[in-house]
Amino acid sequence: MDQDIPLRVIGLVRSAHTDLETTPIQAGVNRAEQGVIEVESAFADGLDGLSGFDCAWLLTWLHRHASDGAPPLRQVPFLLRSQRRLTGIFASRGPRRVNPIGLSLIQILDVGQARVRFAGVDVVDGTPVIDIKPYVTRFDRPPGDPRCGWFDQVSIDERATPAWLAPGT
Amino acid sequence: MDQDIPLRVIGLVRSAHTDLETTPIQAGVNRAEQGVIEVESAFADGLDGLSGFDCAWLLTWLHRHASDGAPPLRQVPFLLRSQRRLTGIFASRGPRRVNPIGLSLIQILDVGQARVRFAGVDVVDGTPVIDIKPYVTRFDRPPGDPRCGWFDQVSIDERATPAWLAPGT
Repeated sequence: MDQDIPLRVIGLVRSAHTDLETTPIQAGVNRAEQGVIEVESAFADGLDGLSGFDCAWLLTWLHRHASDGAPPLRQVPFLLRSQRRLTGIFASRGPRRVNPIGLSLIQILDVGQARVRFAGVDVVDGTPVIDIKPYVTRFDRPPGDPRCGWFDQVSIDERATPAWLAPGT
Repeated sequence: MDQDIPLRVIGLVRSAHTDLETTPIQAGVNRAEQGVIEVESAFADGLDGLSGFDCAWLLTWLHRHASDGAPPLRQVPFLLRSQRRLTGIFASRGPRRVNPIGLSLIQILDVGQARVRFAGVDVVDGTPVIDIKPYVTRFDRPPGDPRCGWFDQVSIDERATPAWLAPGT
């Protein structure tokens, strides 16, 4: 159980953001902004068929958080900064995780030879991509209207960023 | 870009399945079956708050596929076996990937000290867990009714397994 698992980088995200604090916290609250996935040429054939999907899951390695060391297991999420309220990292979507893997729901705009233009940006320029999975409604949409824990008690503004959610800290 | 990224194992899935070919292909088509996540005690505090969520993303390391070597970039998905139709791995949810990361939408049933009982099983017993993220409708539900590529052209039966989808192969 203590063995490390090695991941391969399959590409990089190109985005307009370089500063973590001013990068939107989730693709789902920044659906208009566009970015590009540059896929390593060795893996480009894996994109075959992706253009038939409107949406996909972009799995990234949040490299800027990877050297943080062991993250606290309870943290104050960006959206709870004003309340200074702690929650467990497995009940949060924050980037400081045991394994800083990002999960972003993106809209596929255009699939080229080795690049994917998408909408829904929540990572900084140069973020390594570790997987792309097509969004499949039958698999990925829970029935009904699921309870979403503490998220149900906060308002989530479009284009919210860490800096905006905690002015002055 | 060639550097390997090390992942930590945060726990293991306990499920009734040991054989890959008879394990349901997706949690979303096997919503009734229950399993348990046993979280390493060192990470148990990270579960704080998870019980407030009805659903979560279970990210796993599909270890039984990890030693397959470099997977083909175009494969015949389980659901297209009868048609023998190829698609790129980034347009498929199949387990033989560059990084064999599983993404399962699970229903949270009970959160204990260091274990999570859930419904929606698509992995074999002993599968390493690399992250748990709460399902947040605002982030994870695309608007409208997105196109789902080749999935829109196949029927997906409840509890479908690889063996069932390709009898005799």
